Amino acid sequence: MAPSAQSLPTSVSDEKYANVKWEELGFGFYRTDSMYVAKCKHGESFQEGKIVPYADLQISPCSAVLNYGQGLYEGLKAYRTEDGRIMLFRPDQNALRLQSGAHRLCMPCPSVDQFVSAVKQVVLANKKWIPPPGRGTLYLRSVLFGSGPILGSFPVSEYTFTMFACPVGRYHSDNAGLNLKIEDKFRRAFPGGTGGVKSITNYSPVWITVAEAKAQGFSDVLFLDAATGKNVEELYASNVFIVKGNVVSTPEISGTILPGITRKCIIELTRDFGYKVEERVVPVEDLLDAEEVFCSGTAAIVTTIASVTFKDKKTGFKTGDKTLAAKLFATLTDIQLGRVEDKNGWTVEIDRCHQCETLKL
Amino acid sequence: MAPSAQSLPTSVSDEKYANVKWEELGFGFYRTDSMYVAKCKHGESFQEGKIVPYADLQISPCSAVLNYGQGLYEGLKAYRTEDGRIMLFRPDQNALRLQSGAHRLCMPCPSVDQFVSAVKQVVLANKKWIPPPGRGTLYLRSVLFGSGPILGSFPVSEYTFTMFACPVGRYHSDNAGLNLKIEDKFRRAFPGGTGGVKSITNYSPVWITVAEAKAQGFSDVLFLDAATGKNVEELYASNVFIVKGNVVSTPEISGTILPGITRKCIIELTRDFGYKVEERVVPVEDLLDAEEVFCSGTAAIVTTIASVTFKDKKTGFKTGDKTLAAKLFATLTDIQLGRVEDKNGWTVEIDRCHQCETLKL
Repeated sequence: MAPSAQSLPTSVSDEKYANVKWEELGFGFYRTDSMYVAKCKHGESFQEGKIVPYADLQISPCSAVLNYGQGLYEGLKAYRTEDGRIMLFRPDQNALRLQSGAHRLCMPCPSVDQFVSAVKQVVLANKKWIPPPGRGTLYLRSVLFGSGPILGSFPVSEYTFTMFACPVGRYHSDNAGLNLKIEDKFRRAFPGGTGGVKSITNYSPVWITVAEAKAQGFSDVLFLDAATGKNVEELYASNVFIVKGNVVSTPEISGTILPGITRKCIIELTRDFGYKVEERVVPVEDLLDAEEVFCSGTAAIVTTIASVTFKDKKTGFKTGDKTLAAKLFATLTDIQLGRVEDKNGWTVEIDRCHQCETLKL
Repeated sequence: MAPSAQSLPTSVSDEKYANVKWEELGFGFYRTDSMYVAKCKHGESFQEGKIVPYADLQISPCSAVLNYGQGLYEGLKAYRTEDGRIMLFRPDQNALRLQSGAHRLCMPCPSVDQFVSAVKQVVLANKKWIPPPGRGTLYLRSVLFGSGPILGSFPVSEYTFTMFACPVGRYHSDNAGLNLKIEDKFRRAFPGGTGGVKSITNYSPVWITVAEAKAQGFSDVLFLDAATGKNVEELYASNVFIVKGNVVSTPEISGTILPGITRKCIIELTRDFGYKVEERVVPVEDLLDAEEVFCSGTAAIVTTIASVTFKDKKTGFKTGDKTLAAKLFATLTDIQLGRVEDKNGWTVEIDRCHQCETLKL
């Protein structure tokens, strides 16, 4: 059984834990021991990959990913429970989303079983990097990309699927809720584009405005739809929900917003709580008129939004312990950390034989 | 002086030429000897890079380019003239466009002088890969990308600028003119996006429709604007021009189409020929009503479009020797290959001391 968070010293390095100052853990890159790599030639299927020491990848200067952005990422977390188990949260959903993106970007893709097996192998190979219960999680990042050289004509000759792990703390450090800037010029996605899949091409194109907003003191950016500029879509890397009375609304999945896994859970949990949930077009006016606003994501979990600023006008929302966001955060993390019964079958325990230390896949 | 195209045997390997079947050269990846690599830390400027043997790059699995698509490419060509000189075509324009893109994607960038110097060094280091006059060109591909690891928060710690070379033949192999499909669902770019810079994120997202069109027998895809779906924007990787009477029209530069260097030259040359040139919104109807249509790009040079198919209806255009496209192609390649006087100052000769073989930069 893992030591309790209370008894854990500041910096720990023993059989169970790497030498990390867990209490200072933020959400950033942290080099760990091992990663997973699998390769696949054009016209073939992904076979079982290998756990290898964490290291730089060798990539062709003329590769599809470096020259034409052919890549997809997924992010999920492994949780250490207070009774010493290691849990995953809906890894099959990441695998399915990766498949959808791979189709969109013309790539082969590992099967759901291969993906989930890779997650388990990476977690076990980096087990000492999983933070103590309550101190954080082990973030698993996978990237699927065109690694073969390509110039002018198809196909790409080789694809690579890799997964590595980083211990992470909180994604947003704003305890009192996020203060968002509603972006009125740059757009994240557009109909006929890749906003509905986790394409790497959706991210760096908006850094210019995310960086500017952060320099102005905002926590994050809320993007509007490219077609009309009138409707709310999502934050840089999380979905958005608005609450008014007994109705919770969130932008519908229509190809321009990411079908978030946490988003999907929240819709289920919120209905269980007795709210009416609407997946629909959400005009900015409805957001400004809401009582409560929050965002969701693997990294963000559920985070209250304290204010949005649109065309230099700031609008505040309800925050604190009595919000739906607070209730959802508590419920979701209780399930993820195995503190309550998982009625939905969302968690997956990483099980291994305690006799021989072999992973039971 | 280089041997003339006529006297060149099928496969040549001597001091001047690599062992390439020049007459079979298409537009694809061809591994050459040397490449250029420069790195730059966050907050610093790019310093002079190095010519190194062509090899895979070592890239962090958590790099900005692999995870978030932070990358830009440029393509230009080196030409071998019949009297043995090696020429570049407006390399400063590529350098300036790279700077514009680097600003958009939050990256530092080599200066114009550094970029042009890198081009010259890569060409000379791969001189024997420059095809004989009339048999092709040496294509120079540069990629600027975020190579440092990043997870969650800025900045990226390191950037890499690399350039390699491939001998290339013709980009489009359709001698009688291209047959394009006008794409009515997938979009290439959108207002507030990255269509106006050569971001790697603009390319793989449309492979799904380019591949489908090619499988259907089309040469390439012509994209419409994302905002209205009514106006012509550009092909997968080239600009489009329409001709009616004495007026040549091309979509205006408004952030969603690439400001092509060949496009810019064509506008100047066409005006010199006595045409009226309009940079404007070009509705599909105007295209369908045109007498002649052609596309332009570093790879495509100037290529006649024989037909477009829109909503399953095919419309044909003038092709052959008497087209403006044919005249522009001849004029442009005469300038590029040093066959006529370069009145515009577009060509740059790579000059080196014949005594000591040192590059004169």
